[in-house]
Amino acid sequence: MQAEIITIGDEILIGQIVDTNSAFLGKTLNKAGISIYQITSIQDDEKHILKALKEAEENADIVIITGGLGPTKDDITKHTLCQYFNDTLVENKEVLAHVEDLFTTYISTPISDINRQQALVPSKAKILKNRYGTAPGMWIEKGNKVFISLPGVPYEMKSLIRDEALPALQSRFKFPFIRHKTLLTNGLGESAIAKKIEKVESQLPNYIKLAYLPSLGSVRLRLSAKGTDLRLVEMGIEEQIKRILPLIEDIFVGYEDENTIETIIGSRLIETGKTLSIAESCTGGQIAKGFTANAGASKFFKGSIVSYSTDSKTEILKVATDDIEANSVVSKSVAEAMAINVRELFKSDIGISTTGNAGPTKGESDAEVGTVWIAIATEDNVFSEVFNFSNHREKVIMKASNKALEMLLKIILKK
Amino acid sequence: MQAEIITIGDEILIGQIVDTNSAFLGKTLNKAGISIYQITSIQDDEKHILKALKEAEENADIVIITGGLGPTKDDITKHTLCQYFNDTLVENKEVLAHVEDLFTTYISTPISDINRQQALVPSKAKILKNRYGTAPGMWIEKGNKVFISLPGVPYEMKSLIRDEALPALQSRFKFPFIRHKTLLTNGLGESAIAKKIEKVESQLPNYIKLAYLPSLGSVRLRLSAKGTDLRLVEMGIEEQIKRILPLIEDIFVGYEDENTIETIIGSRLIETGKTLSIAESCTGGQIAKGFTANAGASKFFKGSIVSYSTDSKTEILKVATDDIEANSVVSKSVAEAMAINVRELFKSDIGISTTGNAGPTKGESDAEVGTVWIAIATEDNVFSEVFNFSNHREKVIMKASNKALEMLLKIILKK
Repeated sequence: MQAEIITIGDEILIGQIVDTNSAFLGKTLNKAGISIYQITSIQDDEKHILKALKEAEENADIVIITGGLGPTKDDITKHTLCQYFNDTLVENKEVLAHVEDLFTTYISTPISDINRQQALVPSKAKILKNRYGTAPGMWIEKGNKVFISLPGVPYEMKSLIRDEALPALQSRFKFPFIRHKTLLTNGLGESAIAKKIEKVESQLPNYIKLAYLPSLGSVRLRLSAKGTDLRLVEMGIEEQIKRILPLIEDIFVGYEDENTIETIIGSRLIETGKTLSIAESCTGGQIAKGFTANAGASKFFKGSIVSYSTDSKTEILKVATDDIEANSVVSKSVAEAMAINVRELFKSDIGISTTGNAGPTKGESDAEVGTVWIAIATEDNVFSEVFNFSNHREKVIMKASNKALEMLLKIILKK
Repeated sequence: MQAEIITIGDEILIGQIVDTNSAFLGKTLNKAGISIYQITSIQDDEKHILKALKEAEENADIVIITGGLGPTKDDITKHTLCQYFNDTLVENKEVLAHVEDLFTTYISTPISDINRQQALVPSKAKILKNRYGTAPGMWIEKGNKVFISLPGVPYEMKSLIRDEALPALQSRFKFPFIRHKTLLTNGLGESAIAKKIEKVESQLPNYIKLAYLPSLGSVRLRLSAKGTDLRLVEMGIEEQIKRILPLIEDIFVGYEDENTIETIIGSRLIETGKTLSIAESCTGGQIAKGFTANAGASKFFKGSIVSYSTDSKTEILKVATDDIEANSVVSKSVAEAMAINVRELFKSDIGISTTGNAGPTKGESDAEVGTVWIAIATEDNVFSEVFNFSNHREKVIMKASNKALEMLLKIILKK
């Protein structure tokens, strides 16, 4: 049982937006046991949509289409679906009532004929109710195949999948079980890891796949298993992990799975009743943003300071001017002072800091582009380390953020 | 002349990573006059790769393939390219020297046989040098068609496209001109805007396309033109903008194009010699991160405080405890005090603040989920406004951040 995802919109092809919808769809469907055969991003063009629908029907059992359901002229998905399924648009009373209701409640401009057209749907379509917007989701069957058309607005699409489309798919089909388990490692390249686990990898049973995902400063090892027997699937993965772990003990950081490193750290801090604050220089808010993206962050995250100018380091973070003059703003002692002082300022148990130069040119210090000091202060200790993350701005920011998180995780796991 | 992008990797299909490479490729190629026909994300599977290559060869003149070039067993792109082009792998001495050089300079582990295999390339391939990694880019021609295979690591892929592949394409083909111009609007939905510009839209010449891109709190209008005469392409767009602008004067914020709203604000602040600081509560670092993602942010961005706990609002931002008790932490007066005080704390010309509840449950205040106060303090004034951004956490954070940026832009444009 396979699905294909089709995302419609010129804005994706010209790179004006990043297609995050497909990643969400892939993850959500996969968790429910649905394999994704392919993701296809196509133009707002009738011929192209028809061609993609035809190919997807050949490739997959379930076709999920997002985009092109807005009320304006460049939105042609509904008309094209009618053409593909030899159908016509009819007004749906429930959708019309919902659109009118949304306008009355949230929108100041009066409802127009264009908005009313949102209630036109192919006559063969079953409606999936869009609680957050005017464009309904649509479910159309052809033979044994299911086509689901959803709006491209991410939060509308997400709620439609979770609350409407996925439950409907689950009552229509029986899916196998797919499980992934991902090991986070730190400190070794993928080829060196491959050498370490060579033997285990060559003996993997064929329902288990192993993938290497190198990213800035770490490698993730993903084990994936698929089968109709949940116990076998889960045990199969656990068995392989038991074989791999002893081989990579020195570089193993934790499991990723449902979590990001931020949620692993967050849960651990909440469990132990510890709190965190951050002083970010070159990472510019990236670390704080990662924590606060998750609900419940306020349970352990006290706050952070993006201390971009040298002045703000001395005046807000109370780093001694002498220290900065003697050692430069990118130094072990400034990083440690930032971590210690932000911890005191926010009255948190742990303080982290970054100070460095993300480039592309030298900043207020003489530090080479890519040099970053990271420090972590706890109630009884201060740890710090310097890195050279290369000469690429995005890489420096992301590598420094990831490294700070990894250092933090190692420290709180030890406690 | 059209291109197709193929991204290879199970991690994309299962949603473990978001495919940002395709957006970068789309944008970069498009700017050079190359239309993207389709983006296809496929599995690490030989049959699937062969099928995608065949289809892309039928669809497009240029095929860009990313991913699957790592040194481990799950990376099968090179072998599959050999199969597709009926070719064999041969050792490339320059690549081998480069791999050895990278290991000597940056990596502590000794070079292994696995790493040496990075120097094996199809005999028909021309090498594109990868300055930042071990996997070379490869250029293979078949008839009039060009296939370019690149590693999936974003910064390696980006540098290979910019420095190697694109210049080579430009000397091999002559591309037409493609130009986009995007108008940022704020305050009206897409259907209401469509009604306002209905007449202009219906009279667009057929080499110009108009698209509506609604996002949280704003709509972007993109005009795109394509042709072999650059002057005609550029004038065509300008002419349409002259017709549209008077119709949307009240909701027009600025041009997007090469810029994001953060870079528009940044340039304007640098021009006028003004500086900025931010106090973020519910937006959690999102606004600061947007500014610091761009090089040169230190010229106007003094820093920010993510003031997540109520304590940090009183102790670091010096918001009066009385004020919080009397009005609650999510209130006009607290938002304004945060903006005024962060401006003073960082000695910046402008201070912005956000305080609200992003959900999913009520926090330290009684504010409804979705309620956000945004305030902006300048040398002579304080502006503030309250919003209800709905009950979806991600939506609240993004809408509040975007709204704060729009309010800021309007204020600095007035000056």
